Amino acid sequence: MTIKLYELAAAEDDRLFSPYCWRVKMALAHKGLAFESLPWRFTEKAAIAFSGSGTVPVIVDGDRTVADSWVIAQYLDEAYPDRPRLFEGNEARTLAYFFKHWCEGNVHPPCMRAIVLDLYNALHEKDKAYFRASREKRFGRTLEEHAADRSGAIAALRAALAPLRPVLAEQPFVSARAPGFADYILFGTFQWTRAVSPVKLLEPEDPVYAWRERMLDLHGGLGRKAKGYPV
Amino acid sequence: MTIKLYELAAAEDDRLFSPYCWRVKMALAHKGLAFESLPWRFTEKAAIAFSGSGTVPVIVDGDRTVADSWVIAQYLDEAYPDRPRLFEGNEARTLAYFFKHWCEGNVHPPCMRAIVLDLYNALHEKDKAYFRASREKRFGRTLEEHAADRSGAIAALRAALAPLRPVLAEQPFVSARAPGFADYILFGTFQWTRAVSPVKLLEPEDPVYAWRERMLDLHGGLGRKAKGYPV
Repeated sequence: MTIKLYELAAAEDDRLFSPYCWRVKMALAHKGLAFESLPWRFTEKAAIAFSGSGTVPVIVDGDRTVADSWVIAQYLDEAYPDRPRLFEGNEARTLAYFFKHWCEGNVHPPCMRAIVLDLYNALHEKDKAYFRASREKRFGRTLEEHAADRSGAIAALRAALAPLRPVLAEQPFVSARAPGFADYILFGTFQWTRAVSPVKLLEPEDPVYAWRERMLDLHGGLGRKAKGYPV
Repeated sequence: MTIKLYELAAAEDDRLFSPYCWRVKMALAHKGLAFESLPWRFTEKAAIAFSGSGTVPVIVDGDRTVADSWVIAQYLDEAYPDRPRLFEGNEARTLAYFFKHWCEGNVHPPCMRAIVLDLYNALHEKDKAYFRASREKRFGRTLEEHAADRSGAIAALRAALAPLRPVLAEQPFVSARAPGFADYILFGTFQWTRAVSPVKLLEPEDPVYAWRERMLDLHGGLGRKAKGYPV
């Protein structure tokens, strides 16, 4: 049965920019599970109220509804143990959980500063007031102030990625020889930025750039074919 | 046969403060391998020249000599596959390699700023000129300037540890239900600081503090019994 995936969309239904939804979409493809993408906007809380969650991703798999990208990844490995695993085992899962928090705490903030106005401009009209109010509260300043130093944000992002470069110099993926959920976590970040912003975040000679190229080609080019800007 | 471990010592032979040597010492204990610690100072390059390395840890296991804490960890799992593993598998090893670079790039620098003068004062007299010259070159300023803002360094350390707290809120160890090499990587950092400095780096209510307590008790209290300051 086809899994339904509620995904955050911008003005266009097929400009899908949530890093968390991208994690899940790549995970579904990794496991070879068919899915149908249902575009959703920040302000459509009623449409996913059945899930108990106010945010996406939400998946509906037959009679099971699961929200939150991390919880969904655990669910997929448990519900489909005979398909390719997202985690090698308990230790890898726990280290990937650290990687998730590193990514969200150290990588997302400079990315947000680099793209926030492009993101705002790409949003569906009905989401703009919500996004501005919620993010200005979170940042403690206006979106324009938050976006004021784009070159500083890009430099901060490149510095934050430092621990990853020795890993990708030795292995093609964060999860070693084949991609795993840790790869999808960070790849989601770059699909988020790429969906809404033309900004060049990485230098082509960066090992992270080459890794992102490999990720864009996975699963039939699922990432590369998605609506967004060239990286 | 007892493995020989060349370990960095301060003025006293039993004040062992290298984070990298601590990783190896904990790894040897984890695998239940008997070892003999040989104190070594920064300026005793000739004593380990046989290894091809200018720094410790160096282990001698029968006719095998291995240097570098990361390389030694791989060696131990390969040479002693039937003893408790330091890595669950390839994916966990690669994520632990990321964790190592995160630790050295994000955790060590604020620790160094917090302890560097205590460390300098604890050194063997014959190492002091070497340490001052090499570190002042690395830092681009005097040790005293590098140490000037201890409370800022402690605040930066606590902020850097943020991605770890959600992990330790759910699992007792970085490597999940039992300690693995990733735990020994970060524990080495705290054994380094504790060996030479009385500074209180963590608040008792920090989940990282509780984790460090568990680590101090492992393997018969190997870490806690070592010469150092109360944490």
